[in-house]
Amino acid sequence: MAIKMQIQSRTRNQLIDLTGQVQDIVQKEGWHTGVITLFCPHTTAGVTINENADPAVSRDILETLSRLVPAAQAHFTHLEGNSDAHLKSSLIGVSQQVLLEGGHLLMGTWQNIYFAEFDGPRARQVWVSFCGK
Amino acid sequence: MAIKMQIQSRTRNQLIDLTGQVQDIVQKEGWHTGVITLFCPHTTAGVTINENADPAVSRDILETLSRLVPAAQAHFTHLEGNSDAHLKSSLIGVSQQVLLEGGHLLMGTWQNIYFAEFDGPRARQVWVSFCGK
Amino acid sequence: MAIKMQIQSRTRNQLIDLTGQVQDIVQKEGWHTGVITLFCPHTTAGVTINENADPAVSRDILETLSRLVPAAQAHFTHLEGNSDAHLKSSLIGVSQQVLLEGGHLLMGTWQNIYFAEFDGPRARQVWVSFCGK
Repeated sequence: MAIKMQIQSRTRNQLIDLTGQVQDIVQKEGWHTGVITLFCPHTTAGVTINENADPAVSRDILETLSRLVPAAQAHFTHLEGNSDAHLKSSLIGVSQQVLLEGGHLLMGTWQNIYFAEFDGPRARQVWVSFCGK
Repeated sequence: MAIKMQIQSRTRNQLIDLTGQVQDIVQKEGWHTGVITLFCPHTTAGVTINENADPAVSRDILETLSRLVPAAQAHFTHLEGNSDAHLKSSLIGVSQQVLLEGGHLLMGTWQNIYFAEFDGPRARQVWVSFCGK
Repeated sequence: MAIKMQIQSRTRNQLIDLTGQVQDIVQKEGWHTGVITLFCPHTTAGVTINENADPAVSRDILETLSRLVPAAQAHFTHLEGNSDAHLKSSLIGVSQQVLLEGGHLLMGTWQNIYFAEFDGPRARQVWVSFCGK
């Protein structure tokens, strides 16, 4: 059974740290060793794993991505006006896998799990599922 | 055992909706609860999940991606002339995971699964495998 | 239990073929049929799957990606000066799934698994885990 995490984004582009919440779910569910899948059920957002130490990294990632895929482009035909957010979602990806060992997330020292908002602010979800024992 | 889906792309860049075909495989195989992995065995294509409602989204994604990674670039050294397609494949990714519950794909309301062709038209495959019970 | 592969990159940007090493692990561990997860525990590197035949493809992928995300950008605020590598990591992704059947990697003819270094040279790891039987 997938566990549904609730997320509230505050700005149009935002990286929101989910690591603590995910670790809490792993513990509460008694998941031990295997792989968890994080799945973002939205088409203008995603899930990514990146540095947790310096908040400048998140800022640089979002800003550089927005320069690559500007919000307003003359050739966009989608009337909602958020085609940039749809492409960013496909570039970053809507799912991530993280290994579990002994009931703990097996990640690098500098890695956190982030919800990547590209069309906020919105109420969002990320679903977590476990495969293992 | 992986199930092999057959796909025929019609243009160089194309997003082809696989959602119905994938759901049919899930039902026929009797897969119930867990995670499916969709894997694209090609190096100039990928698999992505994005909006199903307005076809303008697919159009904008492909067009914006082609502006980011133009087909002809002076520094390309690969003689087949499709280096753009190889990079797009690595940016979008060749696999996706989707959660299953009660024999159904657990996805967001607006999400479909797409085969992403970047060097068509070609006969292609996507492989589907299940982990769960 | 995840198996930890040791990798040594030689240049700042490099694609390092892991396919043989991964196949060796699969054989040694006796993994048979299911899915393996490759996870890169670093925030300035990733894992990707792309062409194995012509080395020009790897060269073009790295060069084109570096033109998209130049190493020096005036708006970068992260003091380590490797914000380009962090974004590339999130674009390419830190994990990949590969199907296994009969103890062999189930991949396309032209596909290899690559460690994608974006801030080398460094000593790196990629972790491999198996779900199946």
